[in-house]
Amino acid sequence: MTQSLPVTTQRFLTGITTTGTPHLGNFVGSIRPSVAASQGENAESFYFLADYHALIKCGDPARIQQSTLEIAASWLAAGLDPERVIFYRQSDVPEITELTWLLTCVTGKGMLNRAHAYKASVDKNTAAGNDAETDITAGLFMYPVLMAADILMFKAHKVPVGRDQVQHIEMARDIAQRFNHLYGEHLTLPEAMIEESVSTLPGLDGRKMSKSYDNTIPVFASQAELKKLIAAIVTDSLAPGQAKQTEGSALFQIYQAFASPAETELLRQAYANGMGWGDIKALLFERLDRDIAPMREQYQKLMREPEKIEAILLAGAVKARALAVPLLSELRHAVGLRKLEQLTPVVTKSKSVKANNYGFKQYRESDGQFYFKLISKTGKLLLQSHGFDSPREAAQVIARIQAEGSAVLGEIKDKLHPLENVEINEINSEIN
Amino acid sequence: MTQSLPVTTQRFLTGITTTGTPHLGNFVGSIRPSVAASQGENAESFYFLADYHALIKCGDPARIQQSTLEIAASWLAAGLDPERVIFYRQSDVPEITELTWLLTCVTGKGMLNRAHAYKASVDKNTAAGNDAETDITAGLFMYPVLMAADILMFKAHKVPVGRDQVQHIEMARDIAQRFNHLYGEHLTLPEAMIEESVSTLPGLDGRKMSKSYDNTIPVFASQAELKKLIAAIVTDSLAPGQAKQTEGSALFQIYQAFASPAETELLRQAYANGMGWGDIKALLFERLDRDIAPMREQYQKLMREPEKIEAILLAGAVKARALAVPLLSELRHAVGLRKLEQLTPVVTKSKSVKANNYGFKQYRESDGQFYFKLISKTGKLLLQSHGFDSPREAAQVIARIQAEGSAVLGEIKDKLHPLENVEINEINSEIN
Repeated sequence: MTQSLPVTTQRFLTGITTTGTPHLGNFVGSIRPSVAASQGENAESFYFLADYHALIKCGDPARIQQSTLEIAASWLAAGLDPERVIFYRQSDVPEITELTWLLTCVTGKGMLNRAHAYKASVDKNTAAGNDAETDITAGLFMYPVLMAADILMFKAHKVPVGRDQVQHIEMARDIAQRFNHLYGEHLTLPEAMIEESVSTLPGLDGRKMSKSYDNTIPVFASQAELKKLIAAIVTDSLAPGQAKQTEGSALFQIYQAFASPAETELLRQAYANGMGWGDIKALLFERLDRDIAPMREQYQKLMREPEKIEAILLAGAVKARALAVPLLSELRHAVGLRKLEQLTPVVTKSKSVKANNYGFKQYRESDGQFYFKLISKTGKLLLQSHGFDSPREAAQVIARIQAEGSAVLGEIKDKLHPLENVEINEINSEIN
Repeated sequence: MTQSLPVTTQRFLTGITTTGTPHLGNFVGSIRPSVAASQGENAESFYFLADYHALIKCGDPARIQQSTLEIAASWLAAGLDPERVIFYRQSDVPEITELTWLLTCVTGKGMLNRAHAYKASVDKNTAAGNDAETDITAGLFMYPVLMAADILMFKAHKVPVGRDQVQHIEMARDIAQRFNHLYGEHLTLPEAMIEESVSTLPGLDGRKMSKSYDNTIPVFASQAELKKLIAAIVTDSLAPGQAKQTEGSALFQIYQAFASPAETELLRQAYANGMGWGDIKALLFERLDRDIAPMREQYQKLMREPEKIEAILLAGAVKARALAVPLLSELRHAVGLRKLEQLTPVVTKSKSVKANNYGFKQYRESDGQFYFKLISKTGKLLLQSHGFDSPREAAQVIARIQAEGSAVLGEIKDKLHPLENVEINEINSEIN
């Protein structure tokens, strides 16, 4: 792994898009394990509320603001210690958008065409008989670059993700590699930390609990709501006294995600012994509420004090920007966004030694014919063509050389002047 | 034209990408007319050095820095008065990249697919037998969005452009319209000011003077270089004493771009009378140098004092940011990037009144069948389906309604519950 600054501890980074209300699935799959991980030694953890990302999916400003508050309150209520980790709101670090632009300029568009989320939207449009790009915003298309900026801004080593997000981490690595290749070793290549065992919970209808299925149970629903929602979870129609299957039972899976193995075993026996669905639902409510009640109290307290959460996030942003601002300054200099007085002494340049006067050059001679030459970055003449009748013919030969490399030179040698003291690998390193 | 702030004077905005050394073609086509326009009354002119744009084309950091200096010095030497206009370096207003992200999220990707510059690169790749996206960066693809941010950030009314740039201004209008439609009237719709008569000059080889043809004459070349370059301009081989054509003569066209009509007429007669090419070139040198010499002196002085130019640009950025920062703050609030304590009182939400609980909703009932409903933003039930055996079937009906609008409702009425008190236009306004 490449890194330009010595970092002794491992940095973990996790972002949460601020479009929804945290539900039990989020809690079990993300909040609870992340809070536990943040308490480990030798870890420097970054948690951020991804509100720039939220703009991609959500055109409802009040919802983004509300969700930011709810998610922040949920993580804090679940035990995230903002003194121990760097907990910030993405849009409080606007340097991320500037980095996004720098990275955009080194990102191959072809790579973004292959992003799963974008392709899924195209497939959905095509399946529905719509134009492939219907309702697809540039935001969805550029999302992997924003995500790369999120990660690279803080030189994160590890990004805990589900399997579906691995591609985005690979893209962030690829973008970092291209940047480093062009401008020197400034960015740290992140690694995906794949969470094979990420628990997904079933929702009210038995499908995966997800906002998009509208089947969620908010983590911090009131006791009355929680009871009501549990009552709405789909079951089969077996009566009390009839033995029930735990396999495929949403109630059982949710219970298991909170209970100890011994508690789970007891419930399994109750299923076999024909406990009624009403009693099972009551058990589930009690078990959930035992864990949730103390956090819920804390959550409700936080929700009544949004200014406290705001202050916590702003303090997190100060810590985040203490890292982001110097790195961005380094990167700006690297790409050429520099103060003019830092200029190396200005060389008065004659036409023959212009700084960008390398690579393939097409030109017309006074004989009316069109020529090209290939000049190395050090100004050495590597290829010199004979004359062509049109610039198009010259361009076609250049295109062949660029596409096929030096291997093609033998075949087209009648179009080139023989040159002495030119090595094939000098030519190849200019072509590539 | 829509505008959210009363602006009495017209705002003009011009950007110059910092990748090259200004040449005579730039001077005649852009610098000279722009400086003249900036001296007009009732105009508020913005000139910026587009270094974020330069990153798209140029991977040479020193070149960008050098070009920024050369272009700034050229404009100042040509008479741009930084007290009278807002003259700034784009990257000194990083708010532009943040605005770029906000705009990215409302920009249709399909529109960007149709951008000329992107399409030209694809065509070039295809013609060369390469993969369509070879060497195309996301920077090239996203360039129209950055340009829209440049324009919209300053509520520019008029953007002077050549015909080839009109499409980009139309895209900026389109992006502003979408933003205003989603978030309220915040952005001013710009208009292209098409410069039909933009003079292009021929270069050394007779083709249009352009960096990409490597046929340029730097505006502020030294007298010796200027003389040498003029000597290299292509002519035909007619001898002194033979009558010459002004039509198609690069020397004549360049002369005309600087000379008065009377001077031009004199040269036309000299052509007819058989003046030799050497003498014509000497005339051209003298005529150019008469205009350029005083500016050249100023240019060379400025180039020796990069810290002065830096200070001028930073002062310009202060003026630019005095406009950019408040607008961005307004836009952040509009899209939902808000301080949490500004929250409207938190409504404890039951499942049935979630803020985002509108639009099409798919769900499964306890009968195991799949349903959908359409709910208005005010919470009114507009459509209610019967049960489907699979979520896919439900989705297909939704897709038809979305694609064909309410016209299709009669045809699929056996799949819907009849509802009372629902107007067709209520349904249409939710679908669209």
